[in-house]
Amino acid sequence: MQHPDFMAKVDPDKAYRLLGIGATTLVSASDGKTSDVMAAAWACALDLTPMKATVVLDKSHYTRGLIERSNRFAIQLPLASIAKETITLGSVSMHDDSEKLMHSGARFFHMDGYAMPLVHGCAAWMVFDRISEPSTESKYDLFIGQCVAAWADTRIYRDGHFHFEDLSEDLRLLHYVAGGHFYRTGTPLDVEG
Amino acid sequence: MQHPDFMAKVDPDKAYRLLGIGATTLVSASDGKTSDVMAAAWACALDLTPMKATVVLDKSHYTRGLIERSNRFAIQLPLASIAKETITLGSVSMHDDSEKLMHSGARFFHMDGYAMPLVHGCAAWMVFDRISEPSTESKYDLFIGQCVAAWADTRIYRDGHFHFEDLSEDLRLLHYVAGGHFYRTGTPLDVEG
Repeated sequence: MQHPDFMAKVDPDKAYRLLGIGATTLVSASDGKTSDVMAAAWACALDLTPMKATVVLDKSHYTRGLIERSNRFAIQLPLASIAKETITLGSVSMHDDSEKLMHSGARFFHMDGYAMPLVHGCAAWMVFDRISEPSTESKYDLFIGQCVAAWADTRIYRDGHFHFEDLSEDLRLLHYVAGGHFYRTGTPLDVEG
Repeated sequence: MQHPDFMAKVDPDKAYRLLGIGATTLVSASDGKTSDVMAAAWACALDLTPMKATVVLDKSHYTRGLIERSNRFAIQLPLASIAKETITLGSVSMHDDSEKLMHSGARFFHMDGYAMPLVHGCAAWMVFDRISEPSTESKYDLFIGQCVAAWADTRIYRDGHFHFEDLSEDLRLLHYVAGGHFYRTGTPLDVEG
């Protein structure tokens, strides 16, 4: 499927700005045979240059095995317009429904050179190479990645900044509370330097 | 100084809900002689029970030494009403101004049994015991803590949920972008189960 309109490259070493806002994420991975996408509220920037991030992946998640085998994953920022699909991708497991992705209602695309499915309706997409830390992964379910590619929807993020001011409520990020309950990104606030 | 009005205990094992929303945080620590408070956008929930969290603390931060010596820190969720103080606490170092806290414009209080200063104008306050992981701390500047106490402002968070709907823009959380630029928490979005 064609990649989204308005999609432009972001310097991977500037991608920490995409994560600092604290939005709910979707994590994708593929081992070349099967693919999965899960929701993860516990993803966080870890370092600036090279840009690294952490994500918590419980041992029960099918996506985790795909990452352990492929050493690569994507972190994406779903918009409010796909909140329902985000909840579905976070609550149904590939262990229970091998056609979970097809049944999720989400639409997927691929970028050349990257095996994992990316999700239409996100503000940004970041690909990470896993930095293997077996002790941290096993003890805390905490995975570390280094960003190797990133893209953003230029309506929402350009020139290193989000621009939600002129956008509809559907084009805001999701901030997770519990169950099916989120808050959208709200109004800007600027502190004078 | 007296603790804030509307402050009520939160079960530490439910405090992951306070972090999942992805707000900017303030991190406090004290070694009994000196205290510091810094801003940190890179704090994240790590586990449910017992509730754990991660926070990235660069080696240059004075707060990091206090945590290494006292094995304890607080993570707090500043409201939009103290955005300016949050930026100041994040941009001035105790290395440069030993009276940083006094000069920050923020107001502080203490809870019995906890040495670190807590900040007035937050939605929630969580105290963590450091789980020492020297390799992770040194290699990634990543610190892990287990939540031992938590409180929230009941106007904003009660019954395990945030309640921003009826609150002014000043009583929203901060989501960090860059420089002095934030977005406030916006409107709620509920997906049917």
